Amino acid sequence: MAKYCFGVDVGGTTVKLGCFDIEGNLLEKWEIPTRTAEGGKNILPDVADSIRDKMKERQLNREDVAGVGIGVPGPVDGAGTVYNAVNLSWGVFSIKNELQGLLNIPVEAGNDANVAALGEMWKGGGQGHKNLVAVTLGTGVGGGIIADGKILSGITGAAGEIGHIHVDDAETENCNCGNRGCLEQYTSATGVVRLAKRRLAADDMPSSMRNVENISAKTVFDAVKAGDALAIEVAEQFGAILGKALAGIACVVNPEIFVIGGGVSKAGPILLEFIQKNYTPHVFHGSRGALFALALLGNDAGIYGAAKLVLDRSGGPRG
Amino acid sequence: MAKYCFGVDVGGTTVKLGCFDIEGNLLEKWEIPTRTAEGGKNILPDVADSIRDKMKERQLNREDVAGVGIGVPGPVDGAGTVYNAVNLSWGVFSIKNELQGLLNIPVEAGNDANVAALGEMWKGGGQGHKNLVAVTLGTGVGGGIIADGKILSGITGAAGEIGHIHVDDAETENCNCGNRGCLEQYTSATGVVRLAKRRLAADDMPSSMRNVENISAKTVFDAVKAGDALAIEVAEQFGAILGKALAGIACVVNPEIFVIGGGVSKAGPILLEFIQKNYTPHVFHGSRGALFALALLGNDAGIYGAAKLVLDRSGGPRG
Repeated sequence: MAKYCFGVDVGGTTVKLGCFDIEGNLLEKWEIPTRTAEGGKNILPDVADSIRDKMKERQLNREDVAGVGIGVPGPVDGAGTVYNAVNLSWGVFSIKNELQGLLNIPVEAGNDANVAALGEMWKGGGQGHKNLVAVTLGTGVGGGIIADGKILSGITGAAGEIGHIHVDDAETENCNCGNRGCLEQYTSATGVVRLAKRRLAADDMPSSMRNVENISAKTVFDAVKAGDALAIEVAEQFGAILGKALAGIACVVNPEIFVIGGGVSKAGPILLEFIQKNYTPHVFHGSRGALFALALLGNDAGIYGAAKLVLDRSGGPRG
Repeated sequence: MAKYCFGVDVGGTTVKLGCFDIEGNLLEKWEIPTRTAEGGKNILPDVADSIRDKMKERQLNREDVAGVGIGVPGPVDGAGTVYNAVNLSWGVFSIKNELQGLLNIPVEAGNDANVAALGEMWKGGGQGHKNLVAVTLGTGVGGGIIADGKILSGITGAAGEIGHIHVDDAETENCNCGNRGCLEQYTSATGVVRLAKRRLAADDMPSSMRNVENISAKTVFDAVKAGDALAIEVAEQFGAILGKALAGIACVVNPEIFVIGGGVSKAGPILLEFIQKNYTPHVFHGSRGALFALALLGNDAGIYGAAKLVLDRSGGPRG
């Protein structure tokens, strides 16, 4: 009987890989470069080679491996078809079929943010819950919706794209997606910095941040913790925008828990306070009891979730 | 083999019942009063009696009946437990177990709006689609999310409560839910009337609606069709609020189609135009292709969806 599985998280510059036992213990992790040249045609063969090498090294046969799960930065539907992953130069094709063909081992594929959400549910900040919204506050804002223990993909794999919820009619700058006033423009790491710079420019209110050359999200929340009144205003604005957006999401999917990750979440529990106090007054009472937690797996969430994805489909242990 | 099933839609004043063949043809429908006195304890026994009478009349044995599906006005989780249906004076209990105990026939239960969404997917405006958001613009604004052909219930059955998405910080009046600035305050039948009255009071712009004593949503959209400029402004405002809210919902669940029903939807296809032109510029590109359709089943959506609910769980025909 199969005792191992692999989790793969494809990023724009590196591919992370993990070898797990089927209880979900990470035995070993490593990385390979992502070769995006030539339409990204080498990416999956490189992944297959790396897994084959690892199996040889560990003396594993195909029968020992329950499968390979893989998360990629683009929309992926429930059948494992990707729809244009621009960072990888990929068009539309079945990741599942292609990687399965290369390895002759069961493969399951998903969107990286959705797969990371599954990882946080399984072994991270959302453990013990099966209805979860993962929110990643990084360079952009990503999300993943888990309903009844499974990824909600949507019709073209674009479910959980919560960073592009429209939250401000007055915005004059474009989001990376081409729209204006997206959640990500205010609550990503770069969004928090935009809020801070706009607030600093608004008047002459003193702030420790005026002495900092390159303001980051960390600058803002460090200043908040030091009691800087202007930074606290920025954090309130951040919390108001994100809290209301999460309240709207809760009216749609009624989760048990929100798991907040990404670089901005390094601010720690104080971040959750700013979000929650704006969530509660704006959410339908049936979702008022939702929990808030910090993500725990960091950059490993993707390989954990990818492993879980294939264990679920291959009839491995659940929960 | 079972050839029939029953669909039940419990409302605050009447219970609608339907007898279906397992292909989904409605053979007969009827109503009984909803007795909400004494904590609503008679409601399910009345339903059971009515179904037993109908089975006797049609000379059906228990083996002829695949099951009974039932929708109720309150949050119901995936296991058939209701959490406080205030209009029925119900607390927390398993509808599925209680009605099953009374009838000795398989029972499945769901929230009425969610069940109606399933009905519209099966035999209504959403036929042929499995990822659907149903929006009911009635006295309030209800919703139902169907993901991969199944109702998304959420952790306490409060998924799809889209009428309570917060859309306006400036609102001074309370919504029925206790919050302020909910979608339902602007886009329900009463919400459209509020928008119209506010616009009429704002200045002296001429409008045919100034001669109407009791303005209704129908008044507004009839005036729109007649080219009344003020009414068109109101419809634009309605469309802006609803279009943006549906764009936000699409960023969360990425549906294939929105099915719009309820009293306001009697305005017809013109309603969809006002919604769509505000949806498109505010939604993430992955959801830009979502379709918009009018609901087709009217008040029968609940009994159709309830029948589908039990056929799905009892292994009846799908699709």
